[in-house]
Amino acid sequence: MSAGRNLPLSGERLWSSLMEMARIGALPNGGCDRQALTDEDGEGRRLLQRWGEEVGLALTVDRLGNMVFRREGRDPSRPPVAIGSHLDTQPTGGKFDGVLGVLAGLEIMRALHEAGAETEAPLLLVNWTNEEGARFAPPMMGSGAVMGILPEAEILAKRDGGGAVFGEELRRIGWAGEADPAALRNLGAYLELHIEQGPVLEDGGFDVGVVTHALAQSWFEVTTEGAESHGGSRMAGRRDALMAAAPLVSAVEEIALAAVSADGEAGRGTVGQLDVHPGSRNVSPGRVRFSVDMRHGDPGRLDWMGRELAARAAAIAAGRKVRIEVAPFWHSPPTPFDSALVQRVRDAAAARGLRARDIPTGIGHDAVYVARRVPSVMVFAPCHGGVSHNEAESITPDWATAGLQVLADAALATAGLVRG
Amino acid sequence: MSAGRNLPLSGERLWSSLMEMARIGALPNGGCDRQALTDEDGEGRRLLQRWGEEVGLALTVDRLGNMVFRREGRDPSRPPVAIGSHLDTQPTGGKFDGVLGVLAGLEIMRALHEAGAETEAPLLLVNWTNEEGARFAPPMMGSGAVMGILPEAEILAKRDGGGAVFGEELRRIGWAGEADPAALRNLGAYLELHIEQGPVLEDGGFDVGVVTHALAQSWFEVTTEGAESHGGSRMAGRRDALMAAAPLVSAVEEIALAAVSADGEAGRGTVGQLDVHPGSRNVSPGRVRFSVDMRHGDPGRLDWMGRELAARAAAIAAGRKVRIEVAPFWHSPPTPFDSALVQRVRDAAAARGLRARDIPTGIGHDAVYVARRVPSVMVFAPCHGGVSHNEAESITPDWATAGLQVLADAALATAGLVRG
Repeated sequence: MSAGRNLPLSGERLWSSLMEMARIGALPNGGCDRQALTDEDGEGRRLLQRWGEEVGLALTVDRLGNMVFRREGRDPSRPPVAIGSHLDTQPTGGKFDGVLGVLAGLEIMRALHEAGAETEAPLLLVNWTNEEGARFAPPMMGSGAVMGILPEAEILAKRDGGGAVFGEELRRIGWAGEADPAALRNLGAYLELHIEQGPVLEDGGFDVGVVTHALAQSWFEVTTEGAESHGGSRMAGRRDALMAAAPLVSAVEEIALAAVSADGEAGRGTVGQLDVHPGSRNVSPGRVRFSVDMRHGDPGRLDWMGRELAARAAAIAAGRKVRIEVAPFWHSPPTPFDSALVQRVRDAAAARGLRARDIPTGIGHDAVYVARRVPSVMVFAPCHGGVSHNEAESITPDWATAGLQVLADAALATAGLVRG
Repeated sequence: MSAGRNLPLSGERLWSSLMEMARIGALPNGGCDRQALTDEDGEGRRLLQRWGEEVGLALTVDRLGNMVFRREGRDPSRPPVAIGSHLDTQPTGGKFDGVLGVLAGLEIMRALHEAGAETEAPLLLVNWTNEEGARFAPPMMGSGAVMGILPEAEILAKRDGGGAVFGEELRRIGWAGEADPAALRNLGAYLELHIEQGPVLEDGGFDVGVVTHALAQSWFEVTTEGAESHGGSRMAGRRDALMAAAPLVSAVEEIALAAVSADGEAGRGTVGQLDVHPGSRNVSPGRVRFSVDMRHGDPGRLDWMGRELAARAAAIAAGRKVRIEVAPFWHSPPTPFDSALVQRVRDAAAARGLRARDIPTGIGHDAVYVARRVPSVMVFAPCHGGVSHNEAESITPDWATAGLQVLADAALATAGLVRG
């Protein structure tokens, strides 16, 4: 199961490429700003293009800017095995989120090239456009469009905060291609290495995570409506929308912690946005709006979380004579990764003698969209303190190397390494 | 004690003047926008000027635009007795907040004029500049400057949200006078009729409120700081700044309700502003800032409220491994009104056969600033549902008349009505 063991995979070369890529859009505190379709994104793409061409890869770019490098297989008619992730970052992002997966794929291509090795199936390396969704929302546009989840025409017409149009910006940086995005639907398999963006692997002393599934998500929009009162008025008779919202915000956390499934996994509950109206120091709010993001690996427990939120809201509304609306905002079903590929990743880690654990992803990734149509799996590398989307994001070279090895072994076992 | 009983005080004339003033800056839903130093403020002032001159009053305007109408007393050397309030409104204010007190004072002047009556002490009618503080913060600028609480030069240099300067706007609307504001410090007494802006009088079936004191106020600025986490990350190990803030917001209400003083009065607690950072749906907040407004009639209980807030914050911070800062923002001491004047208002209500109750004001008013240097008192008129700072603000003509009568009787007993 160590298909790549005889290949000259170099953790040092991978690390040095990570550091070189991080110079594009470098920020003062060690992070990167290489948001999708900026000049920096264009420059990062050109560097990857050069690196790909140096090892003989053929580059195709589709109408959404997705970059697809192909290394021909011994049997070109076989569905290709793809490795991918993204080079774009958050406005104050790190060096590794996304980039690790792309450059680990590149390192596999380099090692194959150096060894003169062949695979049965063609091997692809994909850099998906705009995974982060920071400049142009929503996230995961490139993979979403390829898999038919997000309409291509809608994406091309999206505008950023300054009014710039996605399609025009893509042309401006020189990365609007002509290939049909749908061509990527016919992959034989898809593998993605990514940093965990959580502390579980590091805290447990694991070298690598085997990602089994993506959590189901239910997002809600909650509004509490009472009446404004002057800060000098008596408490009796107030119908303060924020005093109604506060225990419901607390309930989101309580519900997530209580939603423990058979495998011992709790849910996640986050209130990331909260607006108070009218927002005056000496006026008790008449209206509060807040977002709720609930996630769970077990869709039944997630349903329970949503019902419990509604029940708590109803009890607070009745007790405080306020109106509370809990409106569904977005739902994403649970996404299992391909069980054969998951087992292949477990086996690869074991064969390398690495400490691995199964872990779900609570976070959206290109692989979660790709998995809707293509057998897919993800490999997680630990990251320090679970910090990401932040300049302080960091990993060790050993973690990068462990992820590279497991990714290589699983991908090459899938594609059928002939000579290596 | 019904000093004004033989005067031709007219509740109908007062009502009709309230309705006429409300046409200036009238809004579609029955309210008014006559914010300080707007064209509408200027127009309202000119209408009051005309009305004052019609009954022989001499108008002086000071450097802050405070309008002072004087009706000479039989003994011009006696310290004048002043009646006042404000004509400026909130951006979507009502017809009565402030205006009732000014036009009730005008009605007393009209009745005295009609009856050819005299008072021993001179009688003043004051329209204070910018009580609301809606366009130019802080509130109560005119009375604050007169009483030496707010520096005159600072006020004249204040800017509104659009950058317009207070002193220039005052000149532009034609109401920058030359009189020294400090001249008004030498009043013999000050009386102000105002709507309650709370539901206590209406709910108890009272005709009038005798305002005994202004609550002490302590305002705080609270910041909770944890760490951002992705909405897909596990709950364990999160240091969510909003989940720390929510129970502290709830504590503000709990503390106010628990702070019951010997006279059975609880405190007030309001969180009117709350900002969440970074404000993304799928990121648990790393930092939350919110305002706290605490009030109590008993300064000892108010001190306890502030200490209890700090103690709750410390407990939450320790339990959640977040940093919480509770910073003092503003403090206003308790302000007792003049006991002789308070008794005079009680007596006036009793002599008119009106149902009255003692009540504190939790809200700032010009009278609260004036009371720092001048024996002062306030009379409250009920208002429907406690609604104010809102177009829906409303009172009945009977409530206006009851307030007028009590104000007149107390003011004229203080000034010494000679012939009426």
